[in-house]
Amino acid sequence: MNAIADDIARLLETAARAARAAAGELARAPRPAKDQALHAAAAALRARTAGILAANEADVAGAPDLSAAYRDRLTLTPARIEAMAKGLEEVAGLPDPVGRVLAEWTRPNGLRIRRVAQPIGVIGMIFESRPNVTADAAALCLKSGNAVILRGGSESTRSAAAIHACLAEGLAVAGLPEAAVQIAPTADRAFVGAMLRAAGLIDLIIPRGGKGLVTRVMEEARVPVLAHAEGLCHTYIHAAADFAMARDVLANAKMRRTGICGATETLLIDAAIAPALLPILVADLKALGCDFRADERARAICPELPAASAKDFSTEWLDAMLSVAVVDGVESALAHIRRHGSEHTEAIVTEDAEAAAEFLNGLSSAVGMWNASTQFCDGGEFGFGAEIGIATGRMHARGPVGLEQLCTYRYHVIGTGEIRA
Amino acid sequence: MNAIADDIARLLETAARAARAAAGELARAPRPAKDQALHAAAAALRARTAGILAANEADVAGAPDLSAAYRDRLTLTPARIEAMAKGLEEVAGLPDPVGRVLAEWTRPNGLRIRRVAQPIGVIGMIFESRPNVTADAAALCLKSGNAVILRGGSESTRSAAAIHACLAEGLAVAGLPEAAVQIAPTADRAFVGAMLRAAGLIDLIIPRGGKGLVTRVMEEARVPVLAHAEGLCHTYIHAAADFAMARDVLANAKMRRTGICGATETLLIDAAIAPALLPILVADLKALGCDFRADERARAICPELPAASAKDFSTEWLDAMLSVAVVDGVESALAHIRRHGSEHTEAIVTEDAEAAAEFLNGLSSAVGMWNASTQFCDGGEFGFGAEIGIATGRMHARGPVGLEQLCTYRYHVIGTGEIRA
Repeated sequence: MNAIADDIARLLETAARAARAAAGELARAPRPAKDQALHAAAAALRARTAGILAANEADVAGAPDLSAAYRDRLTLTPARIEAMAKGLEEVAGLPDPVGRVLAEWTRPNGLRIRRVAQPIGVIGMIFESRPNVTADAAALCLKSGNAVILRGGSESTRSAAAIHACLAEGLAVAGLPEAAVQIAPTADRAFVGAMLRAAGLIDLIIPRGGKGLVTRVMEEARVPVLAHAEGLCHTYIHAAADFAMARDVLANAKMRRTGICGATETLLIDAAIAPALLPILVADLKALGCDFRADERARAICPELPAASAKDFSTEWLDAMLSVAVVDGVESALAHIRRHGSEHTEAIVTEDAEAAAEFLNGLSSAVGMWNASTQFCDGGEFGFGAEIGIATGRMHARGPVGLEQLCTYRYHVIGTGEIRA
Repeated sequence: MNAIADDIARLLETAARAARAAAGELARAPRPAKDQALHAAAAALRARTAGILAANEADVAGAPDLSAAYRDRLTLTPARIEAMAKGLEEVAGLPDPVGRVLAEWTRPNGLRIRRVAQPIGVIGMIFESRPNVTADAAALCLKSGNAVILRGGSESTRSAAAIHACLAEGLAVAGLPEAAVQIAPTADRAFVGAMLRAAGLIDLIIPRGGKGLVTRVMEEARVPVLAHAEGLCHTYIHAAADFAMARDVLANAKMRRTGICGATETLLIDAAIAPALLPILVADLKALGCDFRADERARAICPELPAASAKDFSTEWLDAMLSVAVVDGVESALAHIRRHGSEHTEAIVTEDAEAAAEFLNGLSSAVGMWNASTQFCDGGEFGFGAEIGIATGRMHARGPVGLEQLCTYRYHVIGTGEIRA
């Protein structure tokens, strides 16, 4: 047992040291080389589609007891492989985040100080069943000059290996170190634990998956974590809301896609307009197949709604289900969000600019929206081109994590022989 | 034992929940209120100087076995209290970092996206003997809108309490919540452990002290840590260095103050100029009372220098001691720094701009300097006005940590009823 643990720790250390060396080269790699690697990897994905599909079929066949949803996430199709290839090309088209001068100033003594964006270093990506994450995450790490060790779900090992071979081919074509993109050398779950303990070897862990995975990572990690925890998002319909806008925004925020983290889980509606508007909103959403859990004040207006338990307001449904509570203005809405929210995304619908400002300034969430659907919380919608996840912590980056958020910075101080008094 | 541990966990939770509530108010506090609190606290420090000195005398008397250096750090004087008061007033004079618009753009669909600086939330500050850190750290946290729980050395409890009373008075005068600045309610060392495990209650731990403290914090923390680890700084004298500049910069980098993290610990000098320049540099530093540990190539030029062990090049001397190694150009210097450095601050002295660029771009350190003393790595020297430490990690902030680095950000997304397709 200990012998096995030692072997796995050695495997991790070997991989991480190779990644560290590769990260040094990648940090200095010019944009054309990185983009060439991404284009060559996309071409390899297309050329090897049949082989990737065969590997994926073996993965699916090897995991017979999967739920239909899980099987769907695990299954690749020619269209999904083409989407992966297009994704790599899109990342190649994004500006290089490395070397951007973030700030620059000159001190009275003549020293010129420059804050420059640079890659973080070695990233450990831990994800679940979707094999496409192998390509998506690798592309963002490569373009941002970071080396990455990818550890996907054990049921998708063959698919990940087939996809990884295409990325390795891209790196080789561009003359970049293949160790810049690695997949876990073992499917042993203990390798995840070794990654989480690899302080000094891995600079950042990015978990992407269900609550169980993210919670384990946050509890066990000895390495900084850029965690995407829950997305328990609220849409607050203020007393001064435009009814038509409120109907459109709420329907989109809840029902456009119910399984994404930016989907609204709870409706907060002001008591002043609830009697007139809530029945309309309920009818709209019922027509779209949404179910409800309502507090007593909401049920006084719509008695047919099932009663919510206290727990329901702290539940990320990720489904066609909406918690509903009646509140008494902005402060009351903020209090509900502070008690039950996950600091992901909250929206207010109102024509009252003062109320909107009070709401936005009162939030501590990563994203606050005024008169827009919470489902806009997305790297693509923010203009980042692509995202590796949504950060819900307080440090380093919050909200959508794109190429810029995968960088840190350093200072260059340029003098002419200055010495300190 | 467990009962005691539970009591301490409860004490921490009570303090942290009060801090969380205070942080919400502080995040929205206007600049004048924060500045008024700082000025009132400065006045209180001056008015209560006698009481603070008495408390400090009791602390010093209560710790008879201290080393002279430790005793000096622990001891307060009227001048040191005045310096604390001035420090609070200087922070009051700094711009408010909260609410700065860090970036702003409009999406093709009309959504306006704004990235806005906001406080991190609740900070846990763990430090050692210097009682003035109580005032310095509280001022930076308060001005940046963060609540803070301060846990100083157990031997300085009375001094910290007396200083804290002045900060509490300042908060009260300004009508700000006193829970925004708290000191540990117990001197029990277990309280430190409780702080380190307080994920969700404390947002960031900042350790300030010796290697032992910082190492323990980094190993035990379940909360993000902004760590100031070692400052094993290098000054590299390139073959194209100006001799006079090299002599001035090295003497300042090593000997201005030997105990600060930005002090140079290792001299790297190119083989091409070492025979001519190294003896001069050694004579300069010897005259300033510096001792040496030299590699074989350096001792071939200056045989009187003691031989360095491999370990010496990985030692942060914090003393009048310099490790010396002869290298063969920029790549060789970078290789030495990668093997032995701590990613704090490295400097190159050269008249060759290409060599300087190669050096600066090849570093992964938080700060790279060209023709300047490594001792400039300091929040004040960077123009931050004050600093809470120097961050040597890769995430969130690197280098001097001032008011801006004590902030995180959030997004405001402003629409006109947009829904996502």
